[in-house]
Amino acid sequence: MSGVWKNRISRLMDLIQENELSAVLICSKANIFYFTGYRGPGYLLVPLNGEPKLYVYPLDFEAAKTYVRGGIEVEELSMTARVENVIEGLPEEVKSRLGFDSLNAEDYLRLSALLSHESLKPASEIVWKLRMIKDRSEIENIERACDIASKAMDLASEMLEDGVMESEVKAEVLEEMFKLGADGAAFDIIVASGSRSSMPHGAPGSRVMREGDVVVVDLGAVFEGYCSDMTRTFYIGENPPEEVLKIYEMVLEAKNLAEESVKPWTLSSALYDKVYDRLAAMGYADRFIHGLGHGVGIEIHEPPKISKIGKEMIQENMVITIEPGIYLPGKFGVRLEDTLLVEKDGVRKLTSAPYTLTPY
Amino acid sequence: MSGVWKNRISRLMDLIQENELSAVLICSKANIFYFTGYRGPGYLLVPLNGEPKLYVYPLDFEAAKTYVRGGIEVEELSMTARVENVIEGLPEEVKSRLGFDSLNAEDYLRLSALLSHESLKPASEIVWKLRMIKDRSEIENIERACDIASKAMDLASEMLEDGVMESEVKAEVLEEMFKLGADGAAFDIIVASGSRSSMPHGAPGSRVMREGDVVVVDLGAVFEGYCSDMTRTFYIGENPPEEVLKIYEMVLEAKNLAEESVKPWTLSSALYDKVYDRLAAMGYADRFIHGLGHGVGIEIHEPPKISKIGKEMIQENMVITIEPGIYLPGKFGVRLEDTLLVEKDGVRKLTSAPYTLTPY
Repeated sequence: MSGVWKNRISRLMDLIQENELSAVLICSKANIFYFTGYRGPGYLLVPLNGEPKLYVYPLDFEAAKTYVRGGIEVEELSMTARVENVIEGLPEEVKSRLGFDSLNAEDYLRLSALLSHESLKPASEIVWKLRMIKDRSEIENIERACDIASKAMDLASEMLEDGVMESEVKAEVLEEMFKLGADGAAFDIIVASGSRSSMPHGAPGSRVMREGDVVVVDLGAVFEGYCSDMTRTFYIGENPPEEVLKIYEMVLEAKNLAEESVKPWTLSSALYDKVYDRLAAMGYADRFIHGLGHGVGIEIHEPPKISKIGKEMIQENMVITIEPGIYLPGKFGVRLEDTLLVEKDGVRKLTSAPYTLTPY
Repeated sequence: MSGVWKNRISRLMDLIQENELSAVLICSKANIFYFTGYRGPGYLLVPLNGEPKLYVYPLDFEAAKTYVRGGIEVEELSMTARVENVIEGLPEEVKSRLGFDSLNAEDYLRLSALLSHESLKPASEIVWKLRMIKDRSEIENIERACDIASKAMDLASEMLEDGVMESEVKAEVLEEMFKLGADGAAFDIIVASGSRSSMPHGAPGSRVMREGDVVVVDLGAVFEGYCSDMTRTFYIGENPPEEVLKIYEMVLEAKNLAEESVKPWTLSSALYDKVYDRLAAMGYADRFIHGLGHGVGIEIHEPPKISKIGKEMIQENMVITIEPGIYLPGKFGVRLEDTLLVEKDGVRKLTSAPYTLTPY
């Protein structure tokens, strides 16, 4: 297993060299986890020449030493240290062209005052180049996270009936995820009923579901640090109105079209355009108000962004979502989503649940 | 109620003038919620001369129009817009000295290319000046969030026994919070048992609790967008070892000392120093490895930071936590925490639960 971590660091070093950097300073928790196995805040410095070192605050020192992999050295910062304190004592050759993955503007300004504007280079894309393509152990964890999400969706579906609170479903779903071995939920579970279903991000508070409601359920689990993401839309009651049936069929058709079109070397914006054009032809161009999908891994939203401006090529061993939706303000919304693994000739669906308006 | 929102915006405008800015661009979700009542992503532009305007993506347009308060105008961005597209068309007088609350380095660099380095000013402290002091409606929401957390702690305490999984407690606690009307949990609930209790942030995964375990439970609820935060430490079994008893008493004494010392016009670092010195005198200086506390409000961690480098004066109507802890690596940790309202002559505790090692 130690080979996985060493391999990731060594591929990062290749990219550091290719991009003519002297080192990369990794500040995002997700990136630190990817390269070290430790899930917490800190700074990971990976120099072109020399050994990587993880810097953490006293508060996290024991956890870092316990969970770090690949033999990476851990150094304890003082409680009052800031990012510039990690950098200031380093030899000139390490900080002469320093890449960074993510900094806020204020940290950036202090660091660039220390280093000169020219020696500080945005380098998050280098790390994404690695993280976008999942290795075997990552795919296994995502598969487990997807299995858990699928079972949690079964439970959510069972619970949908007149008189139940949205929040009751959320609580039961989280409990089920824990029971199935999840670290937790990948994001705040969305159970959006009635006209609240027309807001893609859901709405604050909770509501009692009623017969005649459309209900959007969007959930994901985390397993060993890796996420899954899926959405189903249901109707509470016997006879869904024509309009609901029609929109549901359109969204499902758009989703099938997208999934059939995913192949290695497809441009992500071309995928989006295909679905957009189909929905536009049906008269709903302006009601498809978000991207078509996104990468999934350590974070719930990762590159590639599958949208109008998506610049990435789809590649084998990417894990992505496809999630078209149509939203009629004040009335209802329909979204369907699965997590998919890109294989040589197409996709393998990792989440599973029926596509039926009636809770199953 | 509309007066609350107008008042917040008008106080921000006063600060814009005082700081000789032409406008402030608010990008943080929490700040947008504070000024508009809408809980979602977007950009809020508040010019010195003119009306504030909220810019959101198509995805969030309906939610923004539904939840925005104070009569603020909402404008729909294109799906592919970035922060610079909000700014580029504005008149020179609005963007000549533009404050911003939070930007990542890449957005900052693109904006400053558009505006010139001199016209872009970090201004998050202006907003914190307002948010640090809670108004009546905020205090009422935090009180409700604290009541919910206290009841959730009662439930957690009841559940602690040999054979129970940490994750079972987390799931039940969240369900209880929802039942009591919470929007959800304020952060990932920590139930850290055995030697895992010596890691202040907890540890990944879940563990079956056993007799003889020390268990740290750290939880908080969100009510109407406002957070609470509290921690208790328990021992599973009849006779806690001497060392556990001793550390528990020391942490409790440190906490009482801190709470008695909180008064308006106390410097936050002086509070930290007082507790640090007491624990140092007892021989545990190096085992108190985090700050003493923090502000609580829309976010779970807000200014003032009550630490060695805390520069804020404590003020009436701040809401803060006090949370000393001692951690013995590989053995156990003890932390005790409450959420407190600062009043004229001292503090009022908003969270409540017994201070007892034995689950109650």
